[in-house]
Amino acid sequence: MPNPCIIALDLEGVLSPEIWISVAERTKIDALRLTTRDISNYDELMLHRLKILDEQGIKLPDIQNVIENMPLLEGAKEFLNELRSIYQVIILSDTFAEFANPIMKKLGYPTLFCHNLETKDDKITGYKLRQKNQKQHAVEAFKSLKFSVFAAGDSYNDIEMLKAADKACLFCAPDTVKKEFPQFRAVETYKDLMSEILKFA
Amino acid sequence: MPNPCIIALDLEGVLSPEIWISVAERTKIDALRLTTRDISNYDELMLHRLKILDEQGIKLPDIQNVIENMPLLEGAKEFLNELRSIYQVIILSDTFAEFANPIMKKLGYPTLFCHNLETKDDKITGYKLRQKNQKQHAVEAFKSLKFSVFAAGDSYNDIEMLKAADKACLFCAPDTVKKEFPQFRAVETYKDLMSEILKFA
Repeated sequence: MPNPCIIALDLEGVLSPEIWISVAERTKIDALRLTTRDISNYDELMLHRLKILDEQGIKLPDIQNVIENMPLLEGAKEFLNELRSIYQVIILSDTFAEFANPIMKKLGYPTLFCHNLETKDDKITGYKLRQKNQKQHAVEAFKSLKFSVFAAGDSYNDIEMLKAADKACLFCAPDTVKKEFPQFRAVETYKDLMSEILKFA
Repeated sequence: MPNPCIIALDLEGVLSPEIWISVAERTKIDALRLTTRDISNYDELMLHRLKILDEQGIKLPDIQNVIENMPLLEGAKEFLNELRSIYQVIILSDTFAEFANPIMKKLGYPTLFCHNLETKDDKITGYKLRQKNQKQHAVEAFKSLKFSVFAAGDSYNDIEMLKAADKACLFCAPDTVKKEFPQFRAVETYKDLMSEILKFA
């Protein structure tokens, strides 16, 4: 019998829309559209975002309001429900607990490993990464606990997680990522992702 | 700000009744009543159980049928729902996935780390521990991922998990366990357990 299996999933772009793109659309601030798909250095990207929020006077409750009203990706809830009835699933995301909670509520509170914001009077003053390369470290920790790990993500910040997993897929990744990492099978639908997972374990 | 927090919970005796005691009651086989509360060596306990099942002709579907019909502990679902809306929760249990799945369904599929059975023609022929001392190793892995860990359990097989955690409680533990490990605060209700957790983080 193979080891028991953990499915490690990215959140934004895999189960929910990209939070920052939704914020950019709602606030009509194009400079907030950039994601890890565009700037692969996460620190650089976050400093850029916080600077713009500060300049525009956008506070945490404004962003939380956008997230509350942001629907999940179509079929995400059904996919995740089915997956959780078969496997252990842990969501590995570089978002922040303060943003993610309304999404987790909609998803039925799957386990989420992410980061935290620092705030003062509702203004986002900074962020605290729980751990650098947390997605990769989490996959390695699960393997040390004798789980086999299947990982799926769509962005540059998922690549080390995908590399660390026993098997991995890109899910609805942009062409740039697919071209740069042809070693990962790229799937575009939950049906195909489920099929890859079922083949794995 | 402290590290983000993971709550590690035992399953049987904390959220659900003891599976083997329920099986003993339903089958009226008293020799199946022993648990890790009684025999602290897990291998010894499991060999004892499998021998009795074999002698009595009890197969996996018989046990699964008992589990399907076994209610959760009173208030368990509400406690866990509230906990999951605030913290990341992972259930660390020395039960088997083949037994646990109906319980997980009732609990809304929280993440569970446990073991697996080996079967042949529905007969339980053995079991495969995913990892020895898996509860302790899981807590240590979470700490290596920069989480603070609060653990709660009721039995001998929880003690190393409780020792490894940043803070821990005994929950509805038998007097023998409470006397032997007075270093752990012992609580008897979900309200008091929640209160201890909220004090922690």
